[in-house]
Amino acid sequence: MDTDARPRRRGPYAKSAERRRSIVDAAFEVFAARGYQGGSLQDVADRVGMSQTSLLHYFPSKADLLVAVLNRRDVVADTGPLEDETRDFPTILIDQARFNEGVPGLIELYTVLCGESVTEHYPARDYFEHRFARLRDEYSAELRKLEAAGRLREGVDIERAASSIVALWDGIQTQWLLDDSVDMAACLADYLGLIIRPSAP
Amino acid sequence: MDTDARPRRRGPYAKSAERRRSIVDAAFEVFAARGYQGGSLQDVADRVGMSQTSLLHYFPSKADLLVAVLNRRDVVADTGPLEDETRDFPTILIDQARFNEGVPGLIELYTVLCGESVTEHYPARDYFEHRFARLRDEYSAELRKLEAAGRLREGVDIERAASSIVALWDGIQTQWLLDDSVDMAACLADYLGLIIRPSAP
Repeated sequence: MDTDARPRRRGPYAKSAERRRSIVDAAFEVFAARGYQGGSLQDVADRVGMSQTSLLHYFPSKADLLVAVLNRRDVVADTGPLEDETRDFPTILIDQARFNEGVPGLIELYTVLCGESVTEHYPARDYFEHRFARLRDEYSAELRKLEAAGRLREGVDIERAASSIVALWDGIQTQWLLDDSVDMAACLADYLGLIIRPSAP
Repeated sequence: MDTDARPRRRGPYAKSAERRRSIVDAAFEVFAARGYQGGSLQDVADRVGMSQTSLLHYFPSKADLLVAVLNRRDVVADTGPLEDETRDFPTILIDQARFNEGVPGLIELYTVLCGESVTEHYPARDYFEHRFARLRDEYSAELRKLEAAGRLREGVDIERAASSIVALWDGIQTQWLLDDSVDMAACLADYLGLIIRPSAP
């Protein structure tokens, strides 16, 4: 990015950034409401009042736009709770799992893109590689804090436990999308209860 | 199916069934070696010596053929071990996870189709709905046997643990496909060790 750009060049850039932001806003709403398959680029284009061709000028493919929606979701959902100091780590995760039950369209989108990400050259591959690495780091750091506070159970391998939290959560979301009698938050809570002791009253 | 079909009608049927079987054999080899994206219908058609058009007569879409490959994989991998009486339940699962490390192409195929299955009307949806329901039942039954033998740890909810084994396994495979430093079998073994006591020596 050219940080020396003169003010008169900022006009169109800022306008373009704002346009992108409103497209992602609209896409977030459309895919949250209708899921991966139900939502279309045409729906998004209609919502922001532009043609699909113009929209493709900002996001060259549906996959690129969907990755932007996932990034927006992370800003809305993931980042907030971990900075919240009033709840402990297991509670934050379980609350997040309960929140996710209210946004099946986004979970569907996430699940489809996550599956596709394992193929080479898929636009969302980079997003998921970074996401998994970041969450493993963040969760490991939280587990180390709990260990220091004497709350981690004996023999827990922190790195593998961090991977396992992410894995269990992703996997249980898939089962829940196919059968909503599966209790995502309870499965996650069970696992966290196996590795973490309750906080002292 | 017409069980009263006269012998002379069985000829073409048997031939057709055999043809389907050899297509699935070929597809299994192609996708095991090259994965979801690397394998193509043309590769499969070439291998069985037919045109892609003829192949589509047997399997109307790539997705239909891939579901047949997943079913073949289940016959090869899943069903065998659980009938093996010499190993206990955790060992069977961990051995299977280690086996899966040797067939990344099939795991990639499984992961992509699993993600896509959560969308409506996707051909693999039915396969995954049934697979998850079946595995939850099978694993619950195995956990109940361990409970009866005094090997289940206190407070484990059997149905949720069965869902969680499947979920953790699916999720950790996805992370492993994107970063092979993730140890699938060790994560699974850790979890099983949290809910199941070792067998008496």
